[in-house]
Amino acid sequence: MGGDALKPVRFYFDFISPFGYFASLRIDELAARYGRQVEWTSMLLGISVLKVMKIPPVVELPLKGTYVIRDASRYARQFAVPFRRAASLPVSRTVEAGRLFAWAKALDPGRAKHLAGQIFRSYFVECDDIGDLAVLRHCARAAGFEWAEYQAAREQGTPAQLLRQNVDDSLANGVFGSPFFIVDQEPFFGVEKLPVVEQWLAAGGW
Amino acid sequence: MGGDALKPVRFYFDFISPFGYFASLRIDELAARYGRQVEWTSMLLGISVLKVMKIPPVVELPLKGTYVIRDASRYARQFAVPFRRAASLPVSRTVEAGRLFAWAKALDPGRAKHLAGQIFRSYFVECDDIGDLAVLRHCARAAGFEWAEYQAAREQGTPAQLLRQNVDDSLANGVFGSPFFIVDQEPFFGVEKLPVVEQWLAAGGW
Repeated sequence: MGGDALKPVRFYFDFISPFGYFASLRIDELAARYGRQVEWTSMLLGISVLKVMKIPPVVELPLKGTYVIRDASRYARQFAVPFRRAASLPVSRTVEAGRLFAWAKALDPGRAKHLAGQIFRSYFVECDDIGDLAVLRHCARAAGFEWAEYQAAREQGTPAQLLRQNVDDSLANGVFGSPFFIVDQEPFFGVEKLPVVEQWLAAGGW
Repeated sequence: MGGDALKPVRFYFDFISPFGYFASLRIDELAARYGRQVEWTSMLLGISVLKVMKIPPVVELPLKGTYVIRDASRYARQFAVPFRRAASLPVSRTVEAGRLFAWAKALDPGRAKHLAGQIFRSYFVECDDIGDLAVLRHCARAAGFEWAEYQAAREQGTPAQLLRQNVDDSLANGVFGSPFFIVDQEPFFGVEKLPVVEQWLAAGGW
């Protein structure tokens, strides 16, 4: 795998996914231990799960819905991750957050990760509605992005186009859930795969 | 958790599940390190997934189907597990295998685990049809069970009744997939949760 040694790890997430949030707190440090950068891409579970796989959101499934809510709390306790959003709160639409992130990433991928961190924190810790433009404006400013610039790009339709490209990219790469990781060509789904991603990076595959 | 210290870990599986097979090779040894026995219970994905969650079998889902097949092979390579069944082979019906196991477990839980090992091996290594009674007879004999006794019980409907109880038990305990583990009251889904099960056993929960 020598020739691929410096390819960034791909990390895909949806802002409504607690496990995507949890993974976002670990993936860069993990990859860095193996000399890898990480490219973050926002996708939409509303497309991959509802439209492509044609199944309901996991939290709405009998048995599994209850389980994943418990699993998320258990993970947060284990890793001492700030996590206050009750499962009873309404689920935000993440299209606008995904667009803002896609736009920010095109400008400055490193700073866009701080923006993603602000959005995740706003949703899962402050319990804000991240479908609300005022909330996103606050996140953008906290990460050093000019809201007026985003508004101007938004009027041109650029963020929508960038997010659409990202979602298309995710589907073309077989991404169906959040978090999802691709190391070179190898796909890994779920935050519980982080130790396996690490083993893969350490071994160069098997 | 002191009072629960000796409660067996519950392990649920369906014989068609490669990840259930993989887990069956590790769970007893893992639990034993923490002084725990393991109680094995066969469930039916055809009930929990198709009838209760009302979603298609995972291998039939776009994107995720391809992923899980790849993930199973990757796991088998990583842990050097014998695994030869191609995803293109027809899926066996596992109702009879589940009944045979439920019956064997009622007679001798320890020897029933050897039977389960024979059935898993027959399916995933020998690539047999484990819906075939001749195949199951071979597995039963290899594990030291009298086929004639099973046939007699079968005519009374006992194995069917036992499996139904096991499936009801699985649903009552929130089990929706294979493998599934319950430590005291705590549920864990998927073979990738084995390290978390181990952490839970070591810490006594968190």
